[in-house]
Amino acid sequence: MAKEKKLVQSITARDEDFAQWYTDVVREAKLCDYSGVKGCLNYLPNGYAIWENIQANLDKRFKETGVQNVYLPVLIPESLLQKEKDHIEGFAPEVAWVTKGGEEPLQERFCIRPTSETLFCDVWSKTVQSYRDLPKVWNQWCSVLRWEKTTRPFLRSREFLWQEGHTIHATYEEAEERTLMMRDVYKDFVENDLAIPLVTGKKTPSEKFAGAEDTYTIEALMHDGKALQSGTSHFFGNAFADAYGISYSDKENKLHSVYETSWGLSTRIIGAIIMVHGDDSGLVLPPHIAPVQTRVVPIAQHKEGVLDKANELLAALKAAGYRAEIDDSEKSPGWKFSEQEMLGIPTRIEIGPKDIENGQVVIVRRDTREKIVVALDEIETRLSEILEDIQKALFEKAKAFRDSHIHTATNMDEMKDIAENQIGFIRAMWCGDDACEEAIKDQTGGVTSRCIPEEQEEISNVCVCCGKPAKHMVYWGKAY
Amino acid sequence: MAKEKKLVQSITARDEDFAQWYTDVVREAKLCDYSGVKGCLNYLPNGYAIWENIQANLDKRFKETGVQNVYLPVLIPESLLQKEKDHIEGFAPEVAWVTKGGEEPLQERFCIRPTSETLFCDVWSKTVQSYRDLPKVWNQWCSVLRWEKTTRPFLRSREFLWQEGHTIHATYEEAEERTLMMRDVYKDFVENDLAIPLVTGKKTPSEKFAGAEDTYTIEALMHDGKALQSGTSHFFGNAFADAYGISYSDKENKLHSVYETSWGLSTRIIGAIIMVHGDDSGLVLPPHIAPVQTRVVPIAQHKEGVLDKANELLAALKAAGYRAEIDDSEKSPGWKFSEQEMLGIPTRIEIGPKDIENGQVVIVRRDTREKIVVALDEIETRLSEILEDIQKALFEKAKAFRDSHIHTATNMDEMKDIAENQIGFIRAMWCGDDACEEAIKDQTGGVTSRCIPEEQEEISNVCVCCGKPAKHMVYWGKAY
Repeated sequence: MAKEKKLVQSITARDEDFAQWYTDVVREAKLCDYSGVKGCLNYLPNGYAIWENIQANLDKRFKETGVQNVYLPVLIPESLLQKEKDHIEGFAPEVAWVTKGGEEPLQERFCIRPTSETLFCDVWSKTVQSYRDLPKVWNQWCSVLRWEKTTRPFLRSREFLWQEGHTIHATYEEAEERTLMMRDVYKDFVENDLAIPLVTGKKTPSEKFAGAEDTYTIEALMHDGKALQSGTSHFFGNAFADAYGISYSDKENKLHSVYETSWGLSTRIIGAIIMVHGDDSGLVLPPHIAPVQTRVVPIAQHKEGVLDKANELLAALKAAGYRAEIDDSEKSPGWKFSEQEMLGIPTRIEIGPKDIENGQVVIVRRDTREKIVVALDEIETRLSEILEDIQKALFEKAKAFRDSHIHTATNMDEMKDIAENQIGFIRAMWCGDDACEEAIKDQTGGVTSRCIPEEQEEISNVCVCCGKPAKHMVYWGKAY
Repeated sequence: MAKEKKLVQSITARDEDFAQWYTDVVREAKLCDYSGVKGCLNYLPNGYAIWENIQANLDKRFKETGVQNVYLPVLIPESLLQKEKDHIEGFAPEVAWVTKGGEEPLQERFCIRPTSETLFCDVWSKTVQSYRDLPKVWNQWCSVLRWEKTTRPFLRSREFLWQEGHTIHATYEEAEERTLMMRDVYKDFVENDLAIPLVTGKKTPSEKFAGAEDTYTIEALMHDGKALQSGTSHFFGNAFADAYGISYSDKENKLHSVYETSWGLSTRIIGAIIMVHGDDSGLVLPPHIAPVQTRVVPIAQHKEGVLDKANELLAALKAAGYRAEIDDSEKSPGWKFSEQEMLGIPTRIEIGPKDIENGQVVIVRRDTREKIVVALDEIETRLSEILEDIQKALFEKAKAFRDSHIHTATNMDEMKDIAENQIGFIRAMWCGDDACEEAIKDQTGGVTSRCIPEEQEEISNVCVCCGKPAKHMVYWGKAY
């Protein structure tokens, strides 16, 4: 019994200490833990299975837009990294350097990729010649390494898993279209499959990616009111093409620079799933990406016929295409329920002697704890409806939370007041000056610009900070 | 026309210069190329797509046996790598060392993983306590790095992609069973999906993995008569468990060491696909793992209705679940045929005005070049039969080749004669002494033991080398 209690007690209440709650959920749901390599994570089976489903789902969407997967080396020669000035300035301070290979010191050192624009450019500079070779729409699933000082599971770690897409195009318009297309793919995926509502838009110059002309972002609101940058799509114009010498000849044999984009989404998004949907009982996974959608829990399983019937049900569910499993361990039903809730499995199916007698089961929703009695011969269709209901309910709940945590500020007093007393996004006008962004950050305890949304609204006609004419309405917030 | 000729001419004949033919196929089929990082490969879309299908196929088989995927760090602290003596001796000379992270020199250097036994052991030493925690049956898909001096595309490169499975068990028997189970999974996959017949067995002590008690291998015969070690499964006994302190308490609370296994298959296997099935026209891909199973080639596509009908056919094939594409470029049919053959696409479907008039198409097999006239309304069922025929024919052809290239030697003169004048495997008896293996290698220009097969046959009762009593029948061969 001591062990059973431990599981239920070991989670901090979410609204008592959000950071501790997060750490507790990650640990108790066995998603990941710190490895012996400082700042690097072990992605454990429960956590990695979520990532596998994210991969499968996103990769399918990528391929529908013509993306081809590749794999380029984990190492980047220093000379190659240095060709694009803004890029090296952005990344050099946080890369790990390989200086010895085998028994020999290296003539040139290599860094472990922090991102791979430079490698993709290197391939293309050697192989792209004519308009017939364009576009290239490539992507790789890999890990990258950035020598971060402070780390948190999924949110910030030295090594993390991600996909990085890189594309080159003949025209400015086509590259810009691809940048926006991938932002839309992310938005569609995150909203529909992860049930996380987003605010999207362009990054301000000070927040954009090192070397990019424009960075588009998807921003999600966590339950503690902080924003999480959840995916980005960058438009580079000709900058990399020129630095790395990627050009093509058109039909008239005239030479042009190519236009480039890149876009990435990482295991950080697992942190968003936890912090948007989780509750005091642990993880809550959206059915679309839950590694297990339902867990069958036999009640009074020692009684004759119960385990047989439960396993029969499991087999039927699997055959119908559900990701299903059974907990036929010797633990008590109460312990089993707690564990299923901690793991965030969207539904459990309770089946005991009385249920069998009545030809029914009880489906319990993870999100609302609602108990739904379902006839055994209807379960295959009913379960899919219930899972879809959960998927929608999670999104609606998160959307209502987000919508009720968007505030508006027209001057710095309001801005400071909201930053101090409220949580969530702040909408406010901005003149376009970096200095005002700095000032806002300083005076509000760390509020930064999250994005300039496409749908602009003129809240006022002056900058919230300096009072000069405003150029943009910006979403601001404290961020992870 | 110059360009069209180039494609066809640029491949060396396979039997004229096998190594050059291999290089040509890899280049012309655009599978991979060398990156700017010496000895590292760029896995290009056509090559990576094969790997993706291998992954999907193998991963499914893994999961059916209870494997869970994880991801552990790319870096290994030197102190961790050094805990198992045989292992560090095997790998230390060929690892790359990270000595600087960000702006700071590191207190302890890290190597980029050459294989991850040490990391898996580290996780388990901290988390496994009771028999309830066992077994652990984990796997990761990742890249590893070994600082090789000479490299060849897919066959040997500094960085390569693979999966590495690692498991721990309560008993010797269960671990041994898992070792053999994974060897069987590889065999089943390679024979049935890659159409490559295998010779399987145990490695001799001198050829086994650094730190392993037993290494089981699957060995394939390439068209030039050399063997390729295509996958290995290792049984470690308690060696790693003891070095890393992984123990569990049983039901009576008594402490025991765990038993460990690991098993891996890499992108090297793509080299085997090329070298077993390829021919003078290029790559030949087995339908089960071909990224594209059929390519529709419209004939006289400028004529009214041809492209419409070809695209209609493509849509129908895709809807029926085939991996299909169309070549509606402006190249000539001859060029299109050559390209489809070079890429190894198992079938092409020719459809022109006359075919449309007759309500038929012509399916051309890549392996035999046989042309099969099929009624348009039967194509969906016929194509799947043809693809299965190709899959079987590729295996049978490779098996006939292998079977006709297994020789038997009963003394060193025969051994040397075969090594000099024949290609393929040599079956010969061995006393079990390392010195005889060395002597055979020296006297035959590099023939090494490939494996001790399960099915033993007493060819003679003395060692082929020293004449002392023989212990095993061994498959020998020159190897990649």
